[in-house]
Amino acid sequence: MNQYQARLDKIWDWMAQEGIALTMFEDTEGRRDQTIRWLTGHPGDALLLLSIDRKTLLMPWDINLAKAYATADMIIPYGDFDRLPIRAIYGAVEKFKIPAGSKIEIPPVTPYLVFLNYVGELSDFDILCREQSVVSKALEFRAIKDSDEIKILKKAAGITNALIDLLEKKVCSGKIKTEMDAALFIEIEARKRGCEGTGFETLAAGPERSFGIHAFPSWTSAAFGGQGLSILDFGLRLGGYTTDVTLCFAREPDASQEKIISLVEKAAKLAFSMSNNGTSTRGIAAAVDELFARSRKRMPHALGHGIGLEEHEYPSIRNRADNEWVLSPGMVFTLEPGLYDPVHGGCRLENDILMTETGPEILTEARIIRL
Amino acid sequence: MNQYQARLDKIWDWMAQEGIALTMFEDTEGRRDQTIRWLTGHPGDALLLLSIDRKTLLMPWDINLAKAYATADMIIPYGDFDRLPIRAIYGAVEKFKIPAGSKIEIPPVTPYLVFLNYVGELSDFDILCREQSVVSKALEFRAIKDSDEIKILKKAAGITNALIDLLEKKVCSGKIKTEMDAALFIEIEARKRGCEGTGFETLAAGPERSFGIHAFPSWTSAAFGGQGLSILDFGLRLGGYTTDVTLCFAREPDASQEKIISLVEKAAKLAFSMSNNGTSTRGIAAAVDELFARSRKRMPHALGHGIGLEEHEYPSIRNRADNEWVLSPGMVFTLEPGLYDPVHGGCRLENDILMTETGPEILTEARIIRL
Repeated sequence: MNQYQARLDKIWDWMAQEGIALTMFEDTEGRRDQTIRWLTGHPGDALLLLSIDRKTLLMPWDINLAKAYATADMIIPYGDFDRLPIRAIYGAVEKFKIPAGSKIEIPPVTPYLVFLNYVGELSDFDILCREQSVVSKALEFRAIKDSDEIKILKKAAGITNALIDLLEKKVCSGKIKTEMDAALFIEIEARKRGCEGTGFETLAAGPERSFGIHAFPSWTSAAFGGQGLSILDFGLRLGGYTTDVTLCFAREPDASQEKIISLVEKAAKLAFSMSNNGTSTRGIAAAVDELFARSRKRMPHALGHGIGLEEHEYPSIRNRADNEWVLSPGMVFTLEPGLYDPVHGGCRLENDILMTETGPEILTEARIIRL
Repeated sequence: MNQYQARLDKIWDWMAQEGIALTMFEDTEGRRDQTIRWLTGHPGDALLLLSIDRKTLLMPWDINLAKAYATADMIIPYGDFDRLPIRAIYGAVEKFKIPAGSKIEIPPVTPYLVFLNYVGELSDFDILCREQSVVSKALEFRAIKDSDEIKILKKAAGITNALIDLLEKKVCSGKIKTEMDAALFIEIEARKRGCEGTGFETLAAGPERSFGIHAFPSWTSAAFGGQGLSILDFGLRLGGYTTDVTLCFAREPDASQEKIISLVEKAAKLAFSMSNNGTSTRGIAAAVDELFARSRKRMPHALGHGIGLEEHEYPSIRNRADNEWVLSPGMVFTLEPGLYDPVHGGCRLENDILMTETGPEILTEARIIRL
């Protein structure tokens, strides 16, 4: 599997530079990290240990699943280490013959109390828990998609666009009448077309519920596409990678609803026009905030985010100094301006953009559809 | 909302006993905690701050959603604090007039690096990050369901049982032929009967894929109910609370498959017969492990777990010294023995049990169904 090797090489180069003998990645309940799938193909709960001599040791929860999907130098069930990370690290130290005194890096999201435990139990080693960790670097690397990933995401976007067209037709013709109709249509068509499924719970909100950013419950048997604003937020997961789009359906919008639609459409155009190589993500988000503020409106969520193996990846696209990114070739991200009113409902328009060497390419065709 | 008041009182009594002036609960991406819904009814991303003078301050991501669902003394959008926990705590300190030097408790799952940040920024206060925290106590309290919760879970179990009967009929009659048929049937019927939806992604695995503990992908258009063993693991979420059952369908099982079925059925009977008030959960799990070991089989997962607002709650039912519980009235938990073979497929049988004052009551009717 060539794509895994190239990704692992980046990680190992970083480990060599930092002098880290052993690194642990964790994908378990409460601490999810798709980097394990990115590096090995394994799609389920596991620990992954990488040694400075460029070997991989995967410890899956489900050994049968790993045998079917994973590429690694060694695969040992996590249960053999009583599903205890410290025992797993000791196991890796032994397998890889890591000398005492070496640097072992654990994920930066490790809880304080767990960290104390590591330091106490692994006192022969130098335990690192840092912002600039290998785990964090992997998330940064993942922000720039490689050619295999771009191919999959483009294919997923093509299927997403086919579904957008069908959804438009079926809501217009009245074949899709309820939130449930819309959500089930997506579930079925996604799998028919070779997807693993949806990338996240589809959010389908008819006019009565579109005031919520994320409809709760995510979809019901309530009417969809009636008078006012309906929102449909969904993604299709293909080979692990998810798209993320939001359509808005407007039927006989009143003046307040027209105002919301118009502002959201303007914001989407503005955001796309500003998206280019070298641009600060914060600058784009600030411009949209300002556009809305001029009409005394406020967007209650971020303008966008990277997509990939997770529905939310880097780069972040928000108006915050502590999470600013520079758009670069290979990034794939959403732009999703939205406004929500407790009385008039909400409108969000979300599309996926690929940054290429020569500029932005819109992969998806979500739109505001007038009924 | 009386049920919230009674739950909050338990938390406040604990805070008073421990001398904690302010406690923060967090339900955000990466650190989920349904205790906020348990205490306020708010079903989405939020922080919840509780003061020693028995006041609640909810900081929701989506203010419109909170206005529709939440009960709290104060509700302020998290965005007003730039979605930064430290600013949120400063906001609460001001609103509640918490004096300098007071004890402020943060969740025990707080990452080490974030904890350092808290301690640095909130240097006027005594920041506690402990195993025996208010957040952990809340999870313990939640292991014992109150009468409102038991009522909802019993109702959800009733709907689950109706679906089990229908699934049996439809798989037998051939109306359900694929994993997709089974999964969509559950999605639709759950909502028709008033549920919020499924409690987690339905796992439907035909004979080709039942070797995995958790089928990947969770369901496909592949055949279901053909020769061999098929697994169907699902839950229905009603008013926030989810059931969790697993059916196994067996068609013309060969000798190895019969052996697996027979062992799993024996294990389920053994586990239920041992479940009573005062019993150690570890003892039950150890007995099942031993039963399997006598046939040289090994179960690759825990025997069971509590259910409630989350699909996995306390008590844990596993053979581990570091997570042992005593069964007590009000606990609602699964028992789910399972065995998996890469060639012959897998079998799991999972039901939900309520512990009453007078002993265990099986709420659900999952079974091994021969086709």
